[in-house]
This record gives sequence, C-alpha cells and structure tokens, in this order.
Amino acid sequence: MLDSSKSMANDRRIEALLLQREVEEFNNVYAAALDEQRLTDWAEMFTDDAFYVVISRENADRGLPVGLIYCENKGMILDRAFAMKTEMFAPRYLRHIIGNLQVLGEEPSGDINARANYVVIQVLFDRPEAKLHQVGVYYDKFRRVGDRLKLAERRCVYDNLLVDNALCLPV
Amino acid sequence: MLDSSKSMANDRRIEALLLQREVEEFNNVYAAALDEQRLTDWAEMFTDDAFYVVISRENADRGLPVGLIYCENKGMILDRAFAMKTEMFAPRYLRHIIGNLQVLGEEPSGDINARANYVVIQVLFDRPEAKLHQVGVYYDKFRRVGDRLKLAERRCVYDNLLVDNALCLPV
Amino acid sequence: MLDSSKSMANDRRIEALLLQREVEEFNNVYAAALDEQRLTDWAEMFTDDAFYVVISRENADRGLPVGLIYCENKGMILDRAFAMKTEMFAPRYLRHIIGNLQVLGEEPSGDINARANYVVIQVLFDRPEAKLHQVGVYYDKFRRVGDRLKLAERRCVYDNLLVDNALCLPV
Repeated sequence: MLDSSKSMANDRRIEALLLQREVEEFNNVYAAALDEQRLTDWAEMFTDDAFYVVISRENADRGLPVGLIYCENKGMILDRAFAMKTEMFAPRYLRHIIGNLQVLGEEPSGDINARANYVVIQVLFDRPEAKLHQVGVYYDKFRRVGDRLKLAERRCVYDNLLVDNALCLPV
Repeated sequence: MLDSSKSMANDRRIEALLLQREVEEFNNVYAAALDEQRLTDWAEMFTDDAFYVVISRENADRGLPVGLIYCENKGMILDRAFAMKTEMFAPRYLRHIIGNLQVLGEEPSGDINARANYVVIQVLFDRPEAKLHQVGVYYDKFRRVGDRLKLAERRCVYDNLLVDNALCLPV
Repeated sequence: MLDSSKSMANDRRIEALLLQREVEEFNNVYAAALDEQRLTDWAEMFTDDAFYVVISRENADRGLPVGLIYCENKGMILDRAFAMKTEMFAPRYLRHIIGNLQVLGEEPSGDINARANYVVIQVLFDRPEAKLHQVGVYYDKFRRVGDRLKLAERRCVYDNLLVDNALCLPV
C-alpha cells in the first residue's frame, strides 16, 4: 500500500474511533441522567420527532409493535418524564450498565445507526439486595443537531418476560 | 522530548487504540452472534486450528484442563454449534456483556494476547426474571487472517461453581 | 472551518481519546488486581495521600461521610489490604465489571476527574450461583505520578442498602 493511501485508511479508522467514542459518551450521559433521575435532561437527549419505545424481545421478534412505552415524539417523551417524576419518587435506585456498543453505519440522510446492550440494576428501598431489573438491546438512530448528537430513535428491546414492580420507567 | 519522537510516541498510542477498538468490535460481534443464536456465524470467528474451552476457575487455577466444553479445532467447534442448534431451541434468551478488555501484547508470531471479563445473563421462558448465568474471563489469542481477526484460542474461565440448567452452551 | 483549525480540533479529540483509554486501562488493571486478590498491587495504584472511601448512596446523597471503608492515606489503604488478605481467604470469587467511564475534565493542578459505574459479582464457595454483590459509581481523581496514573481519590458510592456477607472488601 502507498504511504498516502495507508495514511488515508488510518484517518478513516481514527474518524470511526472518534464517532464510536462520541456515541459511547452519549450513552454514558444518558445513563447518568436516568440513574440520577434527571428526567428533563433525559428527555432533552431526543430530537423533536424522536421515536422511543420499550418493547419485549418476544414482540420485537414477531414484528409486534406493542410495548411498555410508546412515544412518537418529544412531547410524548416529556409527558412520560413528568409522569415519571411522581412515580420515581417511589423509593428505588437504578443503575445502568451500557456495553457492547456497535456503530453500524451512516444512512444517506446522515443518521447514524448503532446498537448497544444494556443492563438496568435496581435496588428497592424495602429490599436489601440489588436485582437485575431489565436486560436488553438499544437499537438506535442518532442525528447530529448543531454540534451534538441526539436520539432520533431508540428502540429498547428487553429480554425479560416480566418486568417486576415498575413497568413504566424509561430505560 | 523532541517533536518528532513525541509524534512517534503518539502514533504508537494511536495504533494501540485502533487495535484495542478492533478487538472490542470483534467481541461485540461475537456476543451478538451468540445472543441471536447465529451459531454458524459464531463458529466462523475461530481459526481452523482454534482451541476453545469453557472451564471453571477452580480447575483453571489448579492447572486442570477438564471443562464443560473442550474443542481442539474448528471442526469440533462446528460440531458443538450444530449440536447447540437443537438444544438452543429450548426456550431461553441469552445476553452477553463483555467488558474490561485488555490487549496484553503481541507474540513474535503476530498473535495478539487479550483478556476480557464477561457476564452472560439468561432468561428462561418459564421463569420471568433475568438471572446471572455465567460470569468469568476470556483469555484469548487473536490471529489476523486476511484483513480480519479470528480467535486462535479462547479459554472461558467461569467463576460460578455450578452452571444452572444449560451446561452445554458456548459463551 | 480552516483546515488547520479543523486539524487542531481533531488533535484535541484524539488527545481526549488517548486519556479516556488510559483511564479505562487503569480501571481494568485495578479490577483484575482485586479479582485476583493481588491486594498489594491494588494498594500501589493509589498516591501516598490518597483518599479512598466506600460509602452508601444514601449517605453520600445526604453529605454524610460515614462509610464501610474510610482511608485517608496509602498507609491506611495498605493496612486494609493486609487485613483483607486474611479475610479474603474466606472462599469466594469476585468479578468486577467497570463501565460507563466518563473523564470529566482536568483541574488546574492537573488532577483528572472521572466517574464510572461498577458492578461486583460474587460467588461464595458454599453457594452455587453468582450474585450481584455491590453496584455503584466510582467518583475519582487521577494524578500523573512519573509516567503513570494513580488514584488520588476514589469514592465508591454503592446503591445496595445492605452489602451481604462481606462488608469489608475493597471495591
């Protein structure tokens, strides 16, 4: 390979690395907002026309759209966040671990497709131990708005058949 | 430090970063293949002469080679994958979280040594909750075949003393 | 943007990436030292004047300093490590998963602020299954000593209300 084409290939790999890091950082900020119950901050991470659903793997595999949470735009997401504020007062701690991030590519529109595995661990105040609350995959579409990323779509597909005790929290 | 030697040091760090990212991506693709039960894809991630074992930490610490799974080449890994296809039909979901990846260095042969922690979370269809199925470390040797990495060796050393309900799944 | 300023912006992003990687690697080495019960290696990752505490989220949220472990310097950390050696002999395996790392910025002194989520999974030798032992956040201050990072401060804030069976292990 010529030096210049090798250097260009490396530049592309570095660009990919920087994008990977940017999406990873987005997910970490997202997780911290939910774990610290800053739900307005959480809602602001979506685009105005964002699609946000929480759906079982079972239904997702069958192409059924019915889920625990279904939001077609940021207004619905904000509604959900405000509803949550009351519910979240119920004494519990949540902790997100997001891993296995894969940036899958860019669409002609510039939207970035990605996926990541997530685990939400919950501690209820009247029970001492931490429990696996929800486990699954984020299927995402990121969009650059100004100089930052926002979620144009996040489909949270969870493996658990039953989500204990708090069906309505965003993940 | 002179500018040129600083720049060379930085170049080496960037090379290390790109390799880390490449191995991480490999592990994410590997995890997705297992989680989505694409077991032929999984088997294709090994070299023809790959060594793949799943062994308890207790036995590994004592230098005992006996494990749940023992494969000395890709043929045996493929056998295992096909055997799995039947067994995996048993209704369960698996989800891998791979973290703490460390690329440990290159051997004179060019093989890349690495390790990572893994957690496999399982949902059985007749029980609602997600459970920690297996927790451990991958001790790996990666080899470049054409323009992609393959596993020449993966030793999965798990902490659990008993692996519930499905002794025979690859991890 | 001019090419040169674009290139400078990219250089800054690459610097940030290299620092992120360096802290991530530190955390992986830290986790491996604890998981393999190399507690002297673990203690050596702190500065001489390091502050190391393990404290409940409940107390941390209320500004209460009382915790499971409270060390004001490396001497106290080493004491803890040696005390541990006896206790750790009690038959158990630990496995750390550290994720969601965020490097938050540098102080004028050069100290680097960071945070990361952690999960410690425990296997007791008289019980077959792996359990979530502790879940929480590391709030850290890293300091460069010679050519390597050390922890000048690590506050481990855990979500669990009760830590089962081994209150005194470092995390």
